[in-house]
Amino acid sequence: MLHFVDITQAKENITPYIKETELLYANRFSEQLGTDIYLKLENLQFSGSFKIRGAINKLLSLSDEERRHGVIASSAGNHAQGVAIGAKKLGLQAKIVMPKTAPLAKIQATKRLGAEVILTGDFYDDAYAHAKSLQIETGMEFIHPFDDIAIMAGQGTIGLEMYTSQPDLEVVFLPIGGGGLAAGVACALKTLNPNIQIIGVQADHASSMVRSFENGCVESICVQRTIADGIAVATPGTHTFSVCRQYIDTIVTVSEQQMAVAMIGLLENCNLLCEGAGAASVAAIQNYPELIQGKKVGAILSGGNIDINTFESVIQSGLKALGRRSELKVTVTDHPGELAQLLSLLSSYHVNILNIRQGRGRDNLSLYQMGVTIMIETFDHNHKKQVYEALTAAGYLD
Amino acid sequence: MLHFVDITQAKENITPYIKETELLYANRFSEQLGTDIYLKLENLQFSGSFKIRGAINKLLSLSDEERRHGVIASSAGNHAQGVAIGAKKLGLQAKIVMPKTAPLAKIQATKRLGAEVILTGDFYDDAYAHAKSLQIETGMEFIHPFDDIAIMAGQGTIGLEMYTSQPDLEVVFLPIGGGGLAAGVACALKTLNPNIQIIGVQADHASSMVRSFENGCVESICVQRTIADGIAVATPGTHTFSVCRQYIDTIVTVSEQQMAVAMIGLLENCNLLCEGAGAASVAAIQNYPELIQGKKVGAILSGGNIDINTFESVIQSGLKALGRRSELKVTVTDHPGELAQLLSLLSSYHVNILNIRQGRGRDNLSLYQMGVTIMIETFDHNHKKQVYEALTAAGYLD
Repeated sequence: MLHFVDITQAKENITPYIKETELLYANRFSEQLGTDIYLKLENLQFSGSFKIRGAINKLLSLSDEERRHGVIASSAGNHAQGVAIGAKKLGLQAKIVMPKTAPLAKIQATKRLGAEVILTGDFYDDAYAHAKSLQIETGMEFIHPFDDIAIMAGQGTIGLEMYTSQPDLEVVFLPIGGGGLAAGVACALKTLNPNIQIIGVQADHASSMVRSFENGCVESICVQRTIADGIAVATPGTHTFSVCRQYIDTIVTVSEQQMAVAMIGLLENCNLLCEGAGAASVAAIQNYPELIQGKKVGAILSGGNIDINTFESVIQSGLKALGRRSELKVTVTDHPGELAQLLSLLSSYHVNILNIRQGRGRDNLSLYQMGVTIMIETFDHNHKKQVYEALTAAGYLD
Repeated sequence: MLHFVDITQAKENITPYIKETELLYANRFSEQLGTDIYLKLENLQFSGSFKIRGAINKLLSLSDEERRHGVIASSAGNHAQGVAIGAKKLGLQAKIVMPKTAPLAKIQATKRLGAEVILTGDFYDDAYAHAKSLQIETGMEFIHPFDDIAIMAGQGTIGLEMYTSQPDLEVVFLPIGGGGLAAGVACALKTLNPNIQIIGVQADHASSMVRSFENGCVESICVQRTIADGIAVATPGTHTFSVCRQYIDTIVTVSEQQMAVAMIGLLENCNLLCEGAGAASVAAIQNYPELIQGKKVGAILSGGNIDINTFESVIQSGLKALGRRSELKVTVTDHPGELAQLLSLLSSYHVNILNIRQGRGRDNLSLYQMGVTIMIETFDHNHKKQVYEALTAAGYLD
């Protein structure tokens, strides 16, 4: 079982190796939501996520004998970099098994940190199985991504730092995947302030801890694809589950769209890049107003490692959800000047045009009609509605 | 003339109102460039840029009588928000004149900060002229964006903080527009350490300080459009010019593409969003290796306020410059299976396809050919070259 003293001890041990990240007062979010919001910037931690905290703490807990054998881990993402950077800092040999499908950026980042990367299978489970068999062959120490007291204690140091920066936080939102961060931080904060509310956040598409809470024991679910790949875990840990049950008040879930909107908000309001899991807490704050009203709120931005193509798609989908971008499909008469007239109408409503396609290919067009597809930019849902109404009034839309 | 004591006094005055931003050790940039790189995160400053420092310092320097009249400023960007947030914090009335073409996001942000926004003309110069005439009508105090001792002293506090965090910096890169930040920071750093090198950075498209340095007096240039809108200033200040001449060792310029690449680097390496001007110093570090070799380097990320559509275009252009994205135009025989064959070839080289268009419209096609345009993603220039060679060998390209 995890004890508070494990966390304070971890803090002492890992301090020379990690960055004490800022607890940022998010003034624009605070204004928008009418209450004080503080964000813990673990996306600016070394290696771009909090994972180094637990990894270093675990590595420091190994005996000299164990350290000599080196360490092995399996991960599709942040844990790989956390262990690699930890091993580098302590001068240990590290093998990281990753699925072949892991993003190239994460594979390269792990290699650059000096770890040996082994690619196998298509899924995390394949990498995990291979790492466990390599562990037996090589005698290297296996570093679990979450279900380990030393890992939980390392992640829990985030909670100590938040309390030191802002002891009067009344509710804290934190992302839950396997439960390592959640267990550690919840234990730290509830011990320091038993009145604090701890809200766990999971993706709708990967809510294994929610299900396990409901049924009172660890359960496995089928994870759907999610932009919160950092917390897409099918089975919570056994240890993390019991610690979370003890300290977490409630768990809420957020949709893909809500996370995309939160990521845009973090960019536009704070100039910060977060991955889906990193933005999940902000998504929860934005969508569960009853949990934050009148309270001093903390949220953990757990990481910022996202592939740039994925990131572009997320922006696109977030802007659509905000009514700021939409794909307009209209038909015009196939006659010179028709398209110009449509564009003039849009221009009179200050609509920005991002791209445009016109052609005869579309079904259900008469001989004298052309299909036009325009990606437009509007200010918000209200503006978008006005534009669509004007288009309907002018006969472009039914 | 600006004196060091103006800056230490400014630091004392403005401390309650601003954030002491982090000087981040950028470990991935440091590795890539083989020397220690520290970034001053003014993109995380209140209002998303350093401008609040000078604005608050100026507002605090006003007499009670002047404060009662309120303040007026003209700006297309960050200065507007700097003055608005400063006036809000001190409870002063503020009018901000902006060109009608200013990005909606910046107009709205300025209004949200409680300032009265007046939109006039298409260019900054129109806004400036109108603000000066309103100043005469209303008796409000005009807050210049840079050419003012109090403004320079306020921006100079960035230099004091950098020295306190890391007294052994050997070279510091800073963006130059009108010269307010540059003058203040250079004065602060050179006074504290006369051996430090101060490198100013301007955009190729707006290098008015470079020209003025060359000719030994303030000169005006025609500014071309640039993603570094924050430092696109046609005429440096008279006061800022003489301070810069005294303290700045050299000024280098960076291209649009180099800034786009730097912005991608900041996103991918540091999870930070910067506007063009904010990334200019990093672009200089990446492109003038002779200025940084073996030295401990500082750079100021001056701000992060960028419109999200512009930002998406910047990513696109930066990825192209890095050989990671390209628009491939090929012709295929108009025959079933031809496109599939082309795509199989690309797939065998692990090329990711982002979008694809095929059609007969292109010039110089024979009756039996189709034009195909594919947006592809490659790892780097080397990978891109291999792919293009394979396409040439297979007859798709000449």
